[in-house]
Amino acid sequence: MMIDATGQAELIRVAHLLADAARPETLMHFRAPALVADDKGDGAFDPVTVADRAAEQAMRTVLARERPDDAILGEEYGHKPGTTGLTWVLDPIDGTRGYISGTPTWGVLISVADKTGPKYGIIDQPYISERFAGGFGQATVTGPQGTRDLACRSGRDLADATVLTTFPEVGSKAEGRAFHAVASQAKLTRYGMDCYGYALLAAGQVDLVIEAGLNAYDIQAPIAVITAAGGIVTDWQGGPVHNGGRALAAATPALHAAAMEILQDSLHG
Amino acid sequence: MMIDATGQAELIRVAHLLADAARPETLMHFRAPALVADDKGDGAFDPVTVADRAAEQAMRTVLARERPDDAILGEEYGHKPGTTGLTWVLDPIDGTRGYISGTPTWGVLISVADKTGPKYGIIDQPYISERFAGGFGQATVTGPQGTRDLACRSGRDLADATVLTTFPEVGSKAEGRAFHAVASQAKLTRYGMDCYGYALLAAGQVDLVIEAGLNAYDIQAPIAVITAAGGIVTDWQGGPVHNGGRALAAATPALHAAAMEILQDSLHG
Repeated sequence: MMIDATGQAELIRVAHLLADAARPETLMHFRAPALVADDKGDGAFDPVTVADRAAEQAMRTVLARERPDDAILGEEYGHKPGTTGLTWVLDPIDGTRGYISGTPTWGVLISVADKTGPKYGIIDQPYISERFAGGFGQATVTGPQGTRDLACRSGRDLADATVLTTFPEVGSKAEGRAFHAVASQAKLTRYGMDCYGYALLAAGQVDLVIEAGLNAYDIQAPIAVITAAGGIVTDWQGGPVHNGGRALAAATPALHAAAMEILQDSLHG
Repeated sequence: MMIDATGQAELIRVAHLLADAARPETLMHFRAPALVADDKGDGAFDPVTVADRAAEQAMRTVLARERPDDAILGEEYGHKPGTTGLTWVLDPIDGTRGYISGTPTWGVLISVADKTGPKYGIIDQPYISERFAGGFGQATVTGPQGTRDLACRSGRDLADATVLTTFPEVGSKAEGRAFHAVASQAKLTRYGMDCYGYALLAAGQVDLVIEAGLNAYDIQAPIAVITAAGGIVTDWQGGPVHNGGRALAAATPALHAAAMEILQDSLHG
Protein backbone atom coordinates (compact mmCIF):
# COMPACT_ATOMS: atom_id res chain seq x y z
CA MET A 1 0.00 0.00 0.00
CA MET A 2 1.48 3.33 -1.08
CA ILE A 3 0.92 6.23 1.30
CA ASP A 4 1.80 9.64 -0.13
CA ALA A 5 3.51 12.41 1.82
CA THR A 6 0.24 14.04 2.81
CA GLY A 7 -1.10 10.71 4.01
CA GLN A 8 2.09 10.05 5.95
CA ALA A 9 1.95 13.43 7.66
CA GLU A 10 -1.66 12.76 8.61
CA LEU A 11 -0.85 9.38 10.13
CA ILE A 12 2.08 10.85 12.05
CA ARG A 13 -0.14 13.63 13.37
CA VAL A 14 -2.78 11.17 14.56
CA ALA A 15 -0.20 8.81 16.10
CA HIS A 16 1.07 11.65 18.28
CA LEU A 17 -2.48 12.68 19.18
CA LEU A 18 -2.99 9.14 20.43
CA ALA A 19 0.14 9.24 22.53
CA ASP A 20 -0.90 12.63 23.92
CA ALA A 21 -4.33 11.24 24.82
CA ALA A 22 -2.91 8.19 26.57
CA ARG A 23 -0.39 10.05 28.72
CA PRO A 24 -2.67 11.59 31.36
CA GLU A 25 -4.68 8.38 31.66
CA THR A 26 -1.60 6.29 32.37
CA LEU A 27 -0.06 8.88 34.69
CA MET A 28 -3.22 9.42 36.74
CA HIS A 29 -2.81 6.00 38.33
CA PHE A 30 0.96 5.55 38.14
CA ARG A 31 2.40 5.11 41.62
CA ALA A 32 -0.99 5.79 43.13
CA PRO A 33 -1.33 3.93 46.44
CA ALA A 34 -4.71 2.37 45.69
CA LEU A 35 -3.99 1.07 42.21
CA VAL A 36 -6.32 -1.76 41.27
CA ALA A 37 -4.63 -4.69 39.56
CA ASP A 38 -7.10 -7.31 38.38
CA ASP A 39 -6.04 -10.75 37.41
CA LYS A 40 -7.29 -11.64 33.97
CA GLY A 41 -8.22 -14.99 35.42
CA ASP A 42 -6.06 -17.42 33.49
CA GLY A 43 -3.97 -18.25 36.53
CA ALA A 44 -0.87 -16.38 35.38
CA PHE A 45 -0.07 -13.05 36.97
CA ASP A 46 -1.25 -10.60 34.34
CA PRO A 47 -2.23 -7.34 35.98
CA VAL A 48 -4.64 -5.17 34.11
CA THR A 49 -5.11 -1.76 35.51
CA VAL A 50 -7.76 0.85 35.37
CA ALA A 51 -5.17 2.98 33.63
CA ASP A 52 -4.65 0.41 30.90
CA ARG A 53 -8.32 0.46 29.98
CA ALA A 54 -8.74 4.21 30.30
CA ALA A 55 -5.72 4.88 28.09
CA GLU A 56 -6.92 2.57 25.33
CA GLN A 57 -10.40 4.09 25.53
CA ALA A 58 -8.93 7.59 25.22
CA MET A 59 -7.00 6.52 22.11
CA ARG A 60 -10.06 4.87 20.58
CA THR A 61 -12.01 8.08 21.13
CA VAL A 62 -9.37 10.00 19.16
CA LEU A 63 -9.44 7.44 16.36
CA ALA A 64 -13.26 7.52 16.19
CA ARG A 65 -12.99 11.24 15.51
CA GLU A 66 -9.84 11.42 13.37
CA ARG A 67 -9.68 8.08 11.55
CA PRO A 68 -13.13 6.46 11.78
CA ASP A 69 -12.59 4.16 8.79
CA ASP A 70 -9.31 2.60 9.92
CA ALA A 71 -9.26 -0.70 11.79
CA ILE A 72 -8.07 -0.93 15.40
CA LEU A 73 -6.33 -3.77 17.22
CA GLY A 74 -5.99 -3.02 20.90
CA GLU A 75 -4.79 -5.06 23.84
CA GLU A 76 -7.76 -4.29 26.04
CA TYR A 77 -10.73 -3.94 23.71
CA GLY A 78 -9.84 -6.20 20.80
CA HIS A 79 -10.39 -5.70 17.08
CA LYS A 80 -12.51 -3.09 15.32
CA PRO A 81 -12.78 -3.67 11.55
CA GLY A 82 -12.02 -0.92 9.06
CA THR A 83 -12.22 -0.23 5.34
CA THR A 84 -9.01 1.64 4.53
CA GLY A 85 -6.48 -1.20 4.74
CA LEU A 86 -4.84 0.52 7.70
CA THR A 87 -4.91 -0.81 11.25
CA TRP A 88 -3.96 1.07 14.41
CA VAL A 89 -2.29 -1.29 16.83
CA LEU A 90 -2.46 -0.13 20.45
CA ASP A 91 -0.93 -1.39 23.67
CA PRO A 92 -2.01 1.22 26.21
CA ILE A 93 0.44 0.01 28.86
CA ASP A 94 3.10 -2.39 27.69
CA GLY A 95 4.91 -3.68 30.74
CA THR A 96 2.05 -3.70 33.22
CA ARG A 97 4.21 -5.54 35.75
CA GLY A 98 6.76 -2.77 35.53
CA TYR A 99 3.94 -0.24 35.82
CA ILE A 100 2.55 -1.73 39.03
CA SER A 101 6.10 -1.88 40.42
CA GLY A 102 6.59 1.84 39.79
CA THR A 103 9.44 1.41 37.29
CA PRO A 104 9.82 3.92 34.44
CA THR A 105 10.24 1.17 31.82
CA TRP A 106 6.64 0.57 30.71
CA GLY A 107 5.31 2.40 27.70
CA VAL A 108 2.38 3.23 25.50
CA LEU A 109 2.80 1.45 22.17
CA ILE A 110 1.11 2.86 19.09
CA SER A 111 1.56 1.85 15.49
CA VAL A 112 -0.24 2.03 12.19
CA ALA A 113 0.11 -0.92 9.84
CA ASP A 114 -0.99 -2.15 6.46
CA LYS A 115 -1.03 -5.82 5.55
CA THR A 116 2.75 -5.91 5.18
CA GLY A 117 3.36 -4.68 8.73
CA PRO A 118 3.82 -1.50 10.74
CA LYS A 119 4.61 1.72 8.87
CA TYR A 120 4.96 4.14 11.77
CA GLY A 121 5.27 3.57 15.47
CA ILE A 122 5.61 5.29 18.82
CA ILE A 123 7.06 4.05 22.10
CA ASP A 124 5.97 6.63 24.66
CA GLN A 125 7.20 6.75 28.27
CA PRO A 126 4.85 9.20 29.97
CA TYR A 127 6.57 9.40 33.35
CA ILE A 128 9.85 10.51 31.78
CA SER A 129 7.95 12.49 29.11
CA GLU A 130 10.00 10.65 26.53
CA ARG A 131 8.72 9.65 23.10
CA PHE A 132 10.52 7.44 20.60
CA ALA A 133 8.92 7.57 17.15
CA GLY A 134 9.86 6.16 13.79
CA GLY A 135 8.67 5.46 10.28
CA PHE A 136 8.20 7.15 6.91
CA GLY A 137 11.88 8.03 6.85
CA GLN A 138 12.01 9.62 10.30
CA ALA A 139 13.30 8.32 13.63
CA THR A 140 13.50 10.63 16.62
CA VAL A 141 13.31 10.73 20.38
CA THR A 142 11.91 13.72 22.24
CA GLY A 143 12.52 13.84 25.97
CA PRO A 144 14.76 15.21 28.71
CA GLN A 145 17.57 15.86 26.23
CA GLY A 146 15.34 17.61 23.68
CA THR A 147 14.77 16.06 20.26
CA ARG A 148 17.47 13.81 18.81
CA ASP A 149 17.68 11.48 15.84
CA LEU A 150 17.53 7.80 16.62
CA ALA A 151 20.15 5.54 15.06
CA CYS A 152 21.11 2.02 15.95
CA ARG A 153 24.82 1.73 16.66
CA SER A 154 27.16 -0.27 14.50
CA GLY A 155 30.60 -1.81 14.67
CA ARG A 156 30.14 -4.15 17.62
CA ASP A 157 30.38 -7.88 17.36
CA LEU A 158 28.54 -10.19 19.71
CA ALA A 159 31.45 -10.37 22.17
CA ASP A 160 31.09 -6.61 22.70
CA ALA A 161 27.31 -6.50 22.60
CA THR A 162 24.75 -5.61 25.25
CA VAL A 163 21.69 -7.86 25.08
CA LEU A 164 18.35 -7.23 26.79
CA THR A 165 15.28 -9.22 27.65
CA THR A 166 12.61 -8.50 30.24
CA PHE A 167 12.38 -11.78 32.19
CA PRO A 168 15.35 -14.13 32.72
CA GLU A 169 13.07 -17.10 31.96
CA VAL A 170 12.26 -15.46 28.58
CA GLY A 171 9.52 -17.97 27.73
CA SER A 172 9.52 -21.77 27.56
CA LYS A 173 12.51 -23.68 28.87
CA ALA A 174 13.81 -24.12 25.32
CA GLU A 175 13.37 -20.41 24.63
CA GLY A 176 15.18 -19.56 27.84
CA ARG A 177 18.07 -21.84 26.95
CA ALA A 178 18.31 -20.31 23.49
CA PHE A 179 18.34 -16.77 24.86
CA HIS A 180 21.03 -17.59 27.38
CA ALA A 181 23.11 -19.27 24.67
CA VAL A 182 23.25 -15.86 22.98
CA ALA A 183 23.65 -13.90 26.21
CA SER A 184 26.56 -16.08 27.33
CA GLN A 185 28.52 -14.86 24.29
CA ALA A 186 27.65 -11.19 24.79
CA LYS A 187 29.50 -8.72 26.97
CA LEU A 188 26.57 -7.58 29.07
CA THR A 189 23.05 -8.87 29.68
CA ARG A 190 20.39 -6.73 31.30
CA TYR A 191 16.81 -7.46 32.34
CA GLY A 192 13.62 -5.71 33.25
CA MET A 193 13.32 -2.98 30.63
CA ASP A 194 9.96 -3.97 29.10
CA CYS A 195 9.33 -2.06 25.84
CA TYR A 196 11.91 0.52 26.86
CA GLY A 197 14.55 -1.99 25.78
CA TYR A 198 13.48 -1.65 22.16
CA ALA A 199 13.66 2.12 22.48
CA LEU A 200 17.22 1.83 23.78
CA LEU A 201 18.14 -0.31 20.77
CA ALA A 202 16.78 2.37 18.45
CA ALA A 203 18.69 4.98 20.44
CA GLY A 204 21.99 3.20 19.85
CA GLN A 205 22.49 2.23 23.50
CA VAL A 206 22.18 -1.57 23.30
CA ASP A 207 22.69 -4.12 20.54
CA LEU A 208 20.15 -6.90 20.86
CA VAL A 209 16.69 -7.38 22.36
CA ILE A 210 15.43 -10.95 22.35
CA GLU A 211 11.99 -11.93 23.65
CA ALA A 212 9.36 -14.62 23.24
CA GLY A 213 5.63 -14.98 23.71
CA LEU A 214 4.81 -11.56 22.28
CA ASN A 215 1.51 -10.38 20.91
CA ALA A 216 1.19 -8.27 17.78
CA TYR A 217 0.51 -5.17 19.87
CA ASP A 218 3.72 -5.73 21.87
CA ILE A 219 6.04 -5.66 18.88
CA GLN A 220 4.57 -3.57 16.04
CA ALA A 221 5.59 -0.18 17.41
CA PRO A 222 9.11 -1.44 18.25
CA ILE A 223 9.41 -2.83 14.71
CA ALA A 224 8.55 0.55 13.20
CA VAL A 225 10.85 2.55 15.47
CA ILE A 226 13.83 0.21 15.25
CA THR A 227 13.55 -0.28 11.50
CA ALA A 228 13.42 3.48 11.00
CA ALA A 229 16.56 3.77 13.16
CA GLY A 230 18.43 1.34 10.93
CA GLY A 231 17.96 -1.86 12.89
CA ILE A 232 16.35 -5.19 12.14
CA VAL A 233 13.45 -6.93 13.86
CA THR A 234 12.36 -10.44 12.86
CA ASP A 235 11.27 -13.64 14.51
CA TRP A 236 13.95 -16.09 15.59
CA GLN A 237 14.03 -17.61 12.09
CA GLY A 238 14.42 -14.34 10.23
CA GLY A 239 10.78 -14.06 9.20
CA PRO A 240 8.29 -11.28 9.94
CA VAL A 241 7.26 -10.96 13.60
CA HIS A 242 4.56 -8.31 13.37
CA ASN A 243 1.92 -10.87 14.28
CA GLY A 244 3.81 -11.67 17.49
CA GLY A 245 5.76 -14.65 18.79
CA ARG A 246 9.52 -14.68 19.29
CA ALA A 247 11.29 -11.41 18.50
CA LEU A 248 14.92 -10.83 17.64
CA ALA A 249 15.80 -7.15 17.36
CA ALA A 250 19.34 -6.26 16.35
CA ALA A 251 21.34 -3.13 15.70
CA THR A 252 23.12 -4.56 12.64
CA PRO A 253 22.69 -7.37 10.09
CA ALA A 254 25.84 -9.07 11.36
CA LEU A 255 24.62 -9.15 14.97
CA HIS A 256 21.22 -10.30 13.78
CA ALA A 257 22.76 -13.20 11.86
CA ALA A 258 25.09 -14.15 14.71
CA ALA A 259 22.30 -14.18 17.28
CA MET A 260 19.88 -16.03 14.99
CA GLU A 261 22.39 -18.79 14.34
CA ILE A 262 22.87 -19.36 18.07
CA LEU A 263 19.14 -19.30 18.74
CA GLN A 264 18.49 -21.85 15.98
CA ASP A 265 21.38 -24.07 17.06
CA SER A 266 20.04 -24.07 20.60
CA LEU A 267 16.47 -24.82 19.54
CA HIS A 268 17.25 -27.41 16.87
CA GLY A 269 20.90 -28.34 17.22
CA MET B 1 26.42 11.57 67.79
CA MET B 2 23.70 14.18 68.37
CA ILE B 3 23.12 16.61 65.54
CA ASP B 4 20.87 19.56 66.40
CA ALA B 5 18.25 21.02 64.08
CA THR B 6 20.62 23.65 62.72
CA GLY B 7 23.23 21.01 62.02
CA GLN B 8 20.66 18.79 60.35
CA ALA B 9 19.46 21.59 58.10
CA GLU B 10 23.06 22.30 57.13
CA LEU B 11 23.75 18.67 56.23
CA ILE B 12 20.53 18.50 54.20
CA ARG B 13 21.48 21.68 52.35
CA VAL B 14 24.93 20.34 51.49
CA ALA B 15 23.59 16.92 50.45
CA HIS B 16 21.34 18.60 47.89
CA LEU B 17 24.21 20.82 46.71
CA LEU B 18 26.16 17.64 46.05
CA ALA B 19 23.32 16.10 44.07
CA ASP B 20 22.94 19.34 42.11
CA ALA B 21 26.67 19.33 41.33
CA ALA B 22 26.67 15.72 40.14
CA ARG B 23 23.70 16.01 37.81
CA PRO B 24 25.24 17.90 34.88
CA GLU B 25 28.40 15.77 35.04
CA THR B 26 26.45 12.53 34.79
CA LEU B 27 24.08 13.83 32.13
CA MET B 28 26.81 15.27 29.91
CA HIS B 29 27.89 11.77 28.91
CA PHE B 30 24.64 9.86 29.33
CA ARG B 31 23.62 8.29 26.01
CA ALA B 32 26.49 10.03 24.29
CA PRO B 33 27.72 7.94 21.35
CA ALA B 34 31.43 8.10 22.24
CA LEU B 35 31.15 7.21 25.91
CA VAL B 36 34.37 5.79 27.24
CA ALA B 37 33.97 2.73 29.45
CA ASP B 38 37.25 1.57 30.92
CA ASP B 39 37.66 -1.78 32.53
CA LYS B 40 39.03 -1.48 36.04
CA GLY B 41 41.30 -4.35 35.17
CA ASP B 42 40.25 -7.07 37.59
CA GLY B 43 38.78 -9.18 34.82
CA ALA B 44 35.14 -8.59 35.73
CA PHE B 45 33.12 -6.21 33.60
CA ASP B 46 33.10 -3.08 35.74
CA PRO B 47 32.70 -0.03 33.53
CA VAL B 48 33.97 3.21 34.88
CA THR B 49 33.04 6.22 32.93
CA VAL B 50 34.38 9.65 32.52
CA ALA B 51 31.09 10.80 33.98
CA ASP B 52 31.59 8.74 37.12
CA ARG B 53 34.88 10.42 37.87
CA ALA B 54 33.74 13.92 36.92
CA ALA B 55 30.64 13.64 39.10
CA GLU B 56 32.60 12.54 42.16
CA GLN B 57 35.16 15.27 41.58
CA ALA B 58 32.37 17.84 41.37
CA MET B 59 30.96 16.63 44.67
CA ARG B 60 34.37 16.65 46.35
CA THR B 61 34.84 20.24 45.20
CA VAL B 62 31.59 21.21 46.92
CA LEU B 63 32.62 19.40 50.09
CA ALA B 64 36.05 21.04 50.12
CA ARG B 65 34.27 24.39 50.18
CA GLU B 66 31.25 23.63 52.38
CA ARG B 67 32.41 20.86 54.73
CA PRO B 68 36.22 20.78 54.65
CA ASP B 69 36.55 18.98 57.99
CA ASP B 70 34.22 16.05 57.24
CA ALA B 71 35.59 12.76 55.96
CA ILE B 72 34.72 11.48 52.48
CA LEU B 73 34.35 7.93 51.23
CA GLY B 74 33.87 7.86 47.48
CA GLU B 75 33.71 5.04 44.97
CA GLU B 76 36.19 6.59 42.55
CA TYR B 77 38.65 8.49 44.70
CA GLY B 78 38.67 6.57 47.97
CA HIS B 79 38.83 7.85 51.52
CA LYS B 80 39.65 11.35 52.76
CA PRO B 81 39.99 11.57 56.56
CA GLY B 82 38.11 14.15 58.58
CA THR B 83 37.87 15.47 62.12
CA THR B 84 34.14 15.97 62.74
CA GLY B 85 33.02 12.35 63.09
CA LEU B 86 30.90 12.74 59.95
CA THR B 87 31.64 10.98 56.66
CA TRP B 88 30.12 11.78 53.27
CA VAL B 89 29.65 8.58 51.34
CA LEU B 90 29.45 9.09 47.58
CA ASP B 91 28.67 6.80 44.67
CA PRO B 92 28.68 9.16 41.70
CA ILE B 93 27.04 6.63 39.37
CA ASP B 94 25.54 3.59 41.03
CA GLY B 95 24.54 1.19 38.29
CA THR B 96 27.23 1.94 35.74
CA ARG B 97 26.10 -1.03 33.63
CA GLY B 98 22.64 0.46 33.47
CA TYR B 99 24.18 3.83 32.68
CA ILE B 100 26.18 2.52 29.71
CA SER B 101 23.05 0.71 28.49
CA GLY B 102 21.06 3.95 28.51
CA THR B 103 18.56 2.83 31.15
CA PRO B 104 17.08 5.40 33.56
CA THR B 105 17.74 3.20 36.62
CA TRP B 106 21.22 4.30 37.67
CA GLY B 107 21.57 6.99 40.27
CA VAL B 108 23.83 9.29 42.21
CA LEU B 109 24.05 8.09 45.82
CA ILE B 110 24.93 10.55 48.54
CA SER B 111 24.79 10.06 52.28
CA VAL B 112 26.26 11.49 55.42
CA ALA B 113 27.05 9.09 58.24
CA ASP B 114 28.43 8.98 61.73
CA LYS B 115 29.93 5.84 63.23
CA THR B 116 26.50 4.30 63.76
CA GLY B 117 25.57 4.57 60.09
CA PRO B 118 23.93 6.91 57.60
CA LYS B 119 21.84 9.79 58.93
CA TYR B 120 20.63 11.35 55.69
CA GLY B 121 20.70 10.09 52.14
CA ILE B 122 19.81 10.95 48.56
CA ILE B 123 19.12 8.68 45.60
CA ASP B 124 19.15 11.03 42.61
CA GLN B 125 18.11 10.04 39.07
CA PRO B 126 19.32 12.91 36.91
CA TYR B 127 17.77 11.83 33.60
CA ILE B 128 14.27 11.74 35.09
CA SER B 129 15.11 14.73 37.32
CA GLU B 130 13.90 12.68 40.24
CA ARG B 131 15.35 12.88 43.74
CA PHE B 132 14.52 10.57 46.63
CA ALA B 133 15.80 11.91 49.95
CA GLY B 134 15.40 10.83 53.53
CA GLY B 135 16.65 11.26 57.07
CA PHE B 136 16.27 13.55 60.10
CA GLY B 137 12.54 12.84 60.13
CA GLN B 138 11.91 13.67 56.47
CA ALA B 139 11.38 11.41 53.45
CA THR B 140 10.35 12.89 50.13
CA VAL B 141 10.63 12.43 46.40
CA THR B 142 10.75 15.38 44.02
CA GLY B 143 10.27 14.62 40.35
CA PRO B 144 7.77 14.48 37.50
CA GLN B 145 4.85 14.33 39.94
CA GLY B 146 6.06 17.23 42.08
CA THR B 147 7.11 16.63 45.69
CA ARG B 148 5.52 13.76 47.58
CA ASP B 149 6.17 12.10 50.91
CA LEU B 150 7.83 8.72 50.75
CA ALA B 151 6.31 5.88 52.75
CA CYS B 152 6.90 2.17 52.49
CA ARG B 153 3.66 0.29 51.98
CA SER B 154 2.23 -2.10 54.53
CA GLY B 155 -0.27 -4.91 54.74
CA ARG B 156 1.23 -7.31 52.21
CA ASP B 157 2.51 -10.73 53.10
CA LEU B 158 5.21 -12.45 51.09
CA ALA B 159 2.72 -14.19 48.81
CA ASP B 160 1.53 -10.76 47.63
CA ALA B 161 4.93 -9.11 47.59
CA THR B 162 7.00 -7.70 44.74
CA VAL B 163 10.70 -8.46 45.16
CA LEU B 164 13.56 -6.82 43.26
CA THR B 165 17.19 -7.50 42.62
CA THR B 166 19.44 -6.20 39.87
CA PHE B 167 21.05 -9.36 38.49
CA PRO B 168 19.30 -12.78 38.47
CA GLU B 169 22.57 -14.38 39.62
CA VAL B 170 22.52 -12.03 42.66
CA GLY B 171 26.02 -13.03 43.81
CA SER B 172 27.56 -16.41 44.61
CA LYS B 173 25.64 -19.56 43.73
CA ALA B 174 24.51 -19.89 47.36
CA GLU B 175 23.38 -16.26 47.42
CA GLY B 176 21.50 -16.77 44.16
CA ARG B 177 19.75 -19.86 45.53
CA ALA B 178 18.79 -18.00 48.71
CA PHE B 179 17.39 -15.05 46.75
CA HIS B 180 15.33 -17.31 44.50
CA ALA B 181 14.03 -19.21 47.52
CA VAL B 182 12.46 -15.93 48.63
CA ALA B 183 11.42 -14.88 45.14
CA SER B 184 9.68 -18.19 44.50
CA GLN B 185 7.30 -17.39 47.36
CA ALA B 186 6.62 -13.82 46.23
CA LYS B 187 3.99 -12.72 43.74
CA LEU B 188 6.27 -10.84 41.38
CA THR B 189 10.04 -10.67 40.85
CA ARG B 190 11.66 -7.95 38.79
CA TYR B 191 15.25 -7.32 37.78
CA GLY B 192 17.49 -4.60 36.46
CA MET B 193 16.56 -1.59 38.59
CA ASP B 194 19.98 -0.85 40.14
CA CYS B 195 19.66 1.65 43.00
CA TYR B 196 16.28 2.75 41.67
CA GLY B 197 14.85 -0.40 43.25
CA TYR B 198 15.57 0.95 46.72
CA ALA B 199 13.88 4.21 45.78
CA LEU B 200 10.80 2.27 44.67
CA LEU B 201 10.73 0.49 48.02
CA ALA B 202 10.79 3.85 49.83
CA ALA B 203 8.05 5.07 47.50
CA GLY B 204 5.74 2.23 48.50
CA GLN B 205 5.82 0.54 45.09
CA VAL B 206 7.63 -2.70 45.90
CA ASP B 207 8.10 -4.74 49.06
CA LEU B 208 11.58 -6.25 49.12
CA VAL B 209 14.98 -5.53 47.59
CA ILE B 210 17.59 -8.23 48.16
CA GLU B 211 21.17 -7.93 46.91
CA ALA B 212 24.65 -9.21 47.68
CA GLY B 213 28.22 -8.09 47.13
CA LEU B 214 27.52 -4.46 47.95
CA ASN B 215 30.01 -1.81 48.97
CA ALA B 216 29.33 0.74 51.69
CA TYR B 217 28.75 3.44 49.08
CA ASP B 218 26.13 1.29 47.32
CA ILE B 219 23.87 0.92 50.34
CA GLN B 220 24.27 3.86 52.74
CA ALA B 221 22.01 6.27 50.86
CA PRO B 222 19.35 3.56 50.38
CA ILE B 223 19.50 2.78 54.11
CA ALA B 224 18.87 6.43 55.01
CA VAL B 225 16.04 6.91 52.50
CA ILE B 226 14.24 3.62 53.23
CA THR B 227 14.56 3.93 57.00
CA ALA B 228 13.15 7.44 56.84
CA ALA B 229 10.24 6.07 54.78
CA GLY B 230 9.44 3.49 57.47
CA GLY B 231 11.24 0.48 56.04
CA ILE B 232 14.04 -1.72 57.29
CA VAL B 233 17.46 -2.40 55.77
CA THR B 234 19.84 -4.94 57.30
CA ASP B 235 22.20 -7.63 56.17
CA TRP B 236 20.77 -11.12 55.60
CA GLN B 237 21.21 -11.93 59.30
CA GLY B 238 19.45 -8.85 60.61
CA GLY B 239 22.63 -6.94 61.45
CA PRO B 240 23.80 -3.57 60.18
CA VAL B 241 24.74 -3.46 56.48
CA HIS B 242 26.10 0.07 56.16
CA ASN B 243 29.58 -1.33 55.60
CA GLY B 244 28.33 -3.35 52.64
CA GLY B 245 27.78 -7.02 51.94
CA ARG B 246 24.38 -8.67 51.58
CA ALA B 247 21.41 -6.33 51.87
CA LEU B 248 17.82 -7.13 52.73
CA ALA B 249 15.52 -4.13 52.44
CA ALA B 250 11.90 -4.61 53.41
CA ALA B 251 8.77 -2.50 53.61
CA THR B 252 7.62 -4.01 56.93
CA PRO B 253 9.05 -5.93 59.91
CA ALA B 254 6.91 -8.95 59.03
CA LEU B 255 8.21 -9.12 55.46
CA HIS B 256 11.74 -8.58 56.69
CA ALA B 257 11.43 -11.48 59.12
CA ALA B 258 9.80 -13.77 56.56
CA ALA B 259 12.45 -13.08 53.93
CA MET B 260 15.33 -13.38 56.40
CA GLU B 261 14.14 -16.77 57.61
CA ILE B 262 14.05 -18.11 54.04
CA LEU B 263 17.47 -16.64 53.23
CA GLN B 264 19.01 -18.21 56.34
CA ASP B 265 17.30 -21.56 55.76
CA SER B 266 18.65 -21.61 52.24
CA LEU B 267 22.17 -20.63 53.25
CA HIS B 268 22.44 -22.84 56.33
CA GLY B 269 19.48 -25.23 56.29
